[in-house]
Amino acid sequence: MKNQQICDFIIFGGNGDLAKRKLLPALYYLQRDDLLGRAGRIVAIARTELETGAYRQEARTNLEQRLPAGDFDSATWDALAEKLHYQKLDASKPEDYARLDAFCREGGSTAKVFYLAVPPTLFPAICENLASSGLMNDESRVVLEKPLGNDLESAQLINRQVRAFFKERQTFRIDHYLGKETVQNLLALRFANRLFEPIWNSGGVDHVQITAAETIGVEGRSGYYDNFGAMRDMVQNHLMQLLCLIAMEVPGSMDADAVRDEKLKVLRSLRRIEGEAVSHHTVRGQYEAGTVDEESVPGYLEGHGTRAESRTETFVALKAFIDNWRWSGVPFYLRTGKRLRANFAEVIIQFRNVPHSIFGTDLRHNRAANRLVLRLQPEETIKLMLLSKIPGVAEGIRMKPVALNLNFKEAFDIPRTPGAYARLLLDVLRNDPTLFVRGDESEEAWRWVDRIFAGWNDSGQRPLPYAAGSWGPDAADELIRRDGRTWGPPAEVSL
Amino acid sequence: MKNQQICDFIIFGGNGDLAKRKLLPALYYLQRDDLLGRAGRIVAIARTELETGAYRQEARTNLEQRLPAGDFDSATWDALAEKLHYQKLDASKPEDYARLDAFCREGGSTAKVFYLAVPPTLFPAICENLASSGLMNDESRVVLEKPLGNDLESAQLINRQVRAFFKERQTFRIDHYLGKETVQNLLALRFANRLFEPIWNSGGVDHVQITAAETIGVEGRSGYYDNFGAMRDMVQNHLMQLLCLIAMEVPGSMDADAVRDEKLKVLRSLRRIEGEAVSHHTVRGQYEAGTVDEESVPGYLEGHGTRAESRTETFVALKAFIDNWRWSGVPFYLRTGKRLRANFAEVIIQFRNVPHSIFGTDLRHNRAANRLVLRLQPEETIKLMLLSKIPGVAEGIRMKPVALNLNFKEAFDIPRTPGAYARLLLDVLRNDPTLFVRGDESEEAWRWVDRIFAGWNDSGQRPLPYAAGSWGPDAADELIRRDGRTWGPPAEVSL
Repeated sequence: MKNQQICDFIIFGGNGDLAKRKLLPALYYLQRDDLLGRAGRIVAIARTELETGAYRQEARTNLEQRLPAGDFDSATWDALAEKLHYQKLDASKPEDYARLDAFCREGGSTAKVFYLAVPPTLFPAICENLASSGLMNDESRVVLEKPLGNDLESAQLINRQVRAFFKERQTFRIDHYLGKETVQNLLALRFANRLFEPIWNSGGVDHVQITAAETIGVEGRSGYYDNFGAMRDMVQNHLMQLLCLIAMEVPGSMDADAVRDEKLKVLRSLRRIEGEAVSHHTVRGQYEAGTVDEESVPGYLEGHGTRAESRTETFVALKAFIDNWRWSGVPFYLRTGKRLRANFAEVIIQFRNVPHSIFGTDLRHNRAANRLVLRLQPEETIKLMLLSKIPGVAEGIRMKPVALNLNFKEAFDIPRTPGAYARLLLDVLRNDPTLFVRGDESEEAWRWVDRIFAGWNDSGQRPLPYAAGSWGPDAADELIRRDGRTWGPPAEVSL
Repeated sequence: MKNQQICDFIIFGGNGDLAKRKLLPALYYLQRDDLLGRAGRIVAIARTELETGAYRQEARTNLEQRLPAGDFDSATWDALAEKLHYQKLDASKPEDYARLDAFCREGGSTAKVFYLAVPPTLFPAICENLASSGLMNDESRVVLEKPLGNDLESAQLINRQVRAFFKERQTFRIDHYLGKETVQNLLALRFANRLFEPIWNSGGVDHVQITAAETIGVEGRSGYYDNFGAMRDMVQNHLMQLLCLIAMEVPGSMDADAVRDEKLKVLRSLRRIEGEAVSHHTVRGQYEAGTVDEESVPGYLEGHGTRAESRTETFVALKAFIDNWRWSGVPFYLRTGKRLRANFAEVIIQFRNVPHSIFGTDLRHNRAANRLVLRLQPEETIKLMLLSKIPGVAEGIRMKPVALNLNFKEAFDIPRTPGAYARLLLDVLRNDPTLFVRGDESEEAWRWVDRIFAGWNDSGQRPLPYAAGSWGPDAADELIRRDGRTWGPPAEVSL
């Protein structure tokens, strides 16, 4: 159900880190590209006493510092600033909501988007006050973002609290990976072309790899991270969402629920990793001191705000199976970590070798061929690795893997691929929840992840140590190597 | 059966056009790349009285003029010149062969390659004299090149004449298209990668196009051409060989007969075009005066050496069907002509659209997507055209066709892809006939082509006129347009 109404866009936590780092820049680019037609007032909400004029000045300074050189221009800013307002609000005070309501009524738009860029503990109070103040109606939408709980139970509680006021179709759970160009292009490539679908199954795919590697540590936010860890921060949401999009059956349409029903089916088909399987199919690690980008960095336990004996994992590798007809027996290897050697996020769909080599040579040694590689970070690229003849007059046909590249910047004469947040904020204004996570998906992912945590807790063991600047614990390499496979080439290796 | 023997390489017609344009440059590049280890003496044979020294000087001048700037270097030339000899020989005089035999014995190598770059009418005399002189033995090979007859009967006669002296395994029929990198890479891509084979059939392929378009006319050789025409000059050999490689089943190996058996099966499965079908499924044309590359050029009938009322076709377009399980109902459109608007040779494998669009838009309008394009001329490239998401925040997923390019020069750090002749001459020295046309293939192609000629003759009609610089007769566009398709983009259109 699309919506052409003008929406006020109300950001709770309007002074916070997410607003500064992601939301304001995204709104700026939407304004630059003249895409904020659906947005009425943009109202930043926080507890601090602040005039709109002062907030605008802060926001401007923030953008000037944060945007890449040359992107900031005054005309765009002036148009955005006109929409931008600040309202002081204490989440627990009904009278503040009444004031907000009165302010919004001045603007004249009826629909509202509430972006809750605040901790989930504040959700019940905010929702209740929104409802009783009259700010909320059937056209309202609420935008939520991780952390949304740290296990199934807490996630269910948050969902229940929000559902008491917002219907599921009004609830937009952001996973910014879904806003990435490459991720949406995965859907286009799979479902708009004849080429891939016939081998997109256990008959044609040898295995799938999903890696999100970071060089940064958790300095500065280790208090938060220490209660969370790599599994909750990256696997339960981003990596599992990627897995769903890769593995799902063809939906009947791109309608939000058609797509999300298929993703949910994947999550429900994930084989449980529990008991013995936890030690065989998962590896968790925690970085020690080491060298990243030629700089010595401290270990995780040396960080401020970390409990001295913290067992929080900063690295996870795991092998998942989807027990359905399409994917039976095909391993999905997932891997993520902090303080790794390189910064990259990549999906590899490794196709099977041809059943028989007619060339008199064993083609199985060409590990890097026969794969589709979707790079999400640091740049967004897609390449198809194929075995090709090496040019020349050598006897017979000698081959090596070559990349057929799809580089967005070259293929499309577009100076900058828009950010994931710009895409997703616009979809909220359009009332299109296709690229957002439904509550049942999120809970199903927690259910799967919780069993792994239970296995780790039962084992009584600590995460395996790994040196900062490495590729994680040796056990992560062993996890895939014992299946006769290797992790895909890291970012610094170009093919 | 590979052969490591040192071979003398004897070129009948050593002073002719083919030797100058193709063979000497190919031998030069093989020498440059140090690949003539298997070659003993290279003996140019012709009727003219000429000293080896004078021949070498002529050959050097020829190379200096013909090779791209910077490619000629004296050291390579000196090494090649040392191998290069000239012998006067009158094809009909046994004593000249005795002299050649004596000359070859001096060199000490036992195996010999005879390259017959002379009209087929000379083949019987040459073969007979080679046999009786003792020059020929079981290790000898003979290399033949078009024109090898102008219909089935004459081709069979030539094959019989050669077979009286050379076994099929000793006979190397050159089709230089088979020496092209892109053509061999077609085999690598098809058979070394999992991706294509599952849709390489009537379930996945909508149609195939094979185009060889030339801007040149037949000025200067119209006497020869007038007895031949586009069908015999291009379709019976080059285009049908491409069709075979695209359409053949997976051979058990790259052994010469395994591959050629599969190609033969394709030729035997080609549906006959005869009777009524000739006018429906073929178009022949003859160019009139027009403008090519902004230059006025005369019509075919105005050329010197052309019969005034010549019905020789300078253009052919046809629609072929292969009546076997894999290709049932899939049209193969072939097209070739002189004096067309652009110079290019290209194969398009057009895959079917996806069975259902989940994107709410009709994907069938994206004609240029979902295809594999193999460019043979002017440059050799391979590109895979896929529908990709257009980057940006537009609602839903909007797509356009993009090219995933495999550019040999970029993918492989090789300054020059070696010429087709270099590859094929080396394969002759290696005694590997995989990339050569077997006699039964050639005859089967003639059998198919002859029926079309019979239909043209029965019609009593002249070829359709087309303006030089056009894309051939309108009927050629109509041939494919009435099936709801269009000819692929010409050379000047880049996607």
